[in-house]
Amino acid sequence: MRIALDGMGGDHAPQQTVKGAVEFVRDRAYSDHKVVLVGEPAALEAELRKYSYDSDRIDLVPASQVVAMDEKPARIVKTKPDSSLVKAVTLVRDKQADGIVSAGSTGALLAASLFLLKRIPGVRRPAICPYLPSESGGFVICDAGANVDVRPSHLVQFALMASAYSQHLFGLPSPRIGLLNIGTEATKGNEITVAAHKLLREGFENFVGNVEARDLFNDVADVVVCDGFVGNILVKFGEGLVRHLVNWGKDTLKKHPISMLSLPLMRPALKDLGHQLDHEETGGWPLLGLNGISIVCHGSSNAKAIKNALISATRCVTENLIESIASGIKEHLDLFKETNERET
Amino acid sequence: MRIALDGMGGDHAPQQTVKGAVEFVRDRAYSDHKVVLVGEPAALEAELRKYSYDSDRIDLVPASQVVAMDEKPARIVKTKPDSSLVKAVTLVRDKQADGIVSAGSTGALLAASLFLLKRIPGVRRPAICPYLPSESGGFVICDAGANVDVRPSHLVQFALMASAYSQHLFGLPSPRIGLLNIGTEATKGNEITVAAHKLLREGFENFVGNVEARDLFNDVADVVVCDGFVGNILVKFGEGLVRHLVNWGKDTLKKHPISMLSLPLMRPALKDLGHQLDHEETGGWPLLGLNGISIVCHGSSNAKAIKNALISATRCVTENLIESIASGIKEHLDLFKETNERET
Repeated sequence: MRIALDGMGGDHAPQQTVKGAVEFVRDRAYSDHKVVLVGEPAALEAELRKYSYDSDRIDLVPASQVVAMDEKPARIVKTKPDSSLVKAVTLVRDKQADGIVSAGSTGALLAASLFLLKRIPGVRRPAICPYLPSESGGFVICDAGANVDVRPSHLVQFALMASAYSQHLFGLPSPRIGLLNIGTEATKGNEITVAAHKLLREGFENFVGNVEARDLFNDVADVVVCDGFVGNILVKFGEGLVRHLVNWGKDTLKKHPISMLSLPLMRPALKDLGHQLDHEETGGWPLLGLNGISIVCHGSSNAKAIKNALISATRCVTENLIESIASGIKEHLDLFKETNERET
Repeated sequence: MRIALDGMGGDHAPQQTVKGAVEFVRDRAYSDHKVVLVGEPAALEAELRKYSYDSDRIDLVPASQVVAMDEKPARIVKTKPDSSLVKAVTLVRDKQADGIVSAGSTGALLAASLFLLKRIPGVRRPAICPYLPSESGGFVICDAGANVDVRPSHLVQFALMASAYSQHLFGLPSPRIGLLNIGTEATKGNEITVAAHKLLREGFENFVGNVEARDLFNDVADVVVCDGFVGNILVKFGEGLVRHLVNWGKDTLKKHPISMLSLPLMRPALKDLGHQLDHEETGGWPLLGLNGISIVCHGSSNAKAIKNALISATRCVTENLIESIASGIKEHLDLFKETNERET
């Protein structure tokens, strides 16, 4: 299997992207797979020279442009046709790669993937599906930012696609689907969630109803469904809050010399907790609903995160995620029927 | 000044509500004020007998009913006319109290306050405005759950009301208003936020633009504006995440006996941090836009939280919060004009 990697995408590219690719091909568990590293050849080669690895397992594909994080994503395929991001996606379209991983702009990856790979037949809106770790195992949340204005049927599709992902990547035969809402009663929420609740109740045996944001870490659902506006805000808020609490904790510690003394003793526990919370472990966020595997990583990804995203990509391919989503959509067409005419 | 207190509202009522009232009247800083304690006389008197205090400063008003947390709030004034919550609000309507504090159902307090106190002229939707503490001072967020489906002009009113609250309660002459969004650019967001951004830009010099959820704790704004669906989810998610991290931290610590040894040394810092994060310190969340001071406390409020909410209520009255909101609304009527006809 060949996974295309956007060598120039991310805050720490190409150092960490190249290092991640090398760590991936060095891992014996993935010895059947290759990485197609896309980007400026001189920059990538300079990084690659730092490591010893099986050079047959990393192919270089040159790309002269780089997509900036703040670039308008909508027409990225036209404006940056020779960018590492667009070329890497093109490799998937042309069947020269089985999936693409990028730590570049999520918007640009989504736009390029949508334009070049198209949607799975029947899918209305691709969606971003990050995994949030928790002590009891964590959950995926869909959508986390691809769709800011949604219809109830879109939420149903998010549930379906995220369930397929959860089944294949986390090995859950029947993932519990929860609808993120401001109360657990079926009548709670805004117009969209009230309507979506009915559709989900009708269509999915494993729908557990509305879930409240304060309970998400209490193992109430494996798949949390919401619109991309709410999902994006929730994921970013969690990230900001964890970072803030860690800093606040450190500063508070400094004010208490006696507590500060205990820091060396605390290290094993802090390291363990940090490891569990680490987004680098989660291996990127898939863009679900596209007719090809496309995985976006956090902009601040290091080599470990890149390696784990490459692993996720291979698993999505091996587990036939695309086919699984396609057949799920086909099975539930009746749920989307009513709004078929109005859809683009 | 007289503040009505719903003696039966909250998970720990009447023990903690009564204790909170006693602690308030015992505090010399508030010796000009009285508490009107509303609820079942036998239950309240039994609690009051536990304390010594100036009995002139706590008046009892009997109420035979209690509003349950899961009760439908819409017609609460009709269904539970003799409840402690409804009677306490009625005291404000009848000018027998200057404000009301309840740790009961937010929905019921909102419905009863709206029905009995009415809105400030020009205000379309009352909104809930909690304070979220942070190391750099914290921020208020409005709306946190009163309005799940909003129009852009509602968001402008939330900004205006929360700014008035922030000016008076936190002493900020010109609080920075931020619009919660998924990106900082003016064009980012859903239909509602894009339109609201324009209105806010037009109407407020202290509008700092869109703010991202991950930056809220980095002192980017004093007032964060959003619809009640997003705001409610964000506040509850934060609460759940903090609780989860604390438990996860404890469990991780238990797995590392060496780290566990440091716990006694850590106590001063942990206590300090816990104190800073404590929602009991924040003194309840005002329902803004009502023609009377109405403050809701967390359902799990203890005596300290109740006392602080009583203090907040007196400050809202002293600082003329209602008049300040009323004049702010009048000044900005042009911003709401375009949708005047369609409003209820």
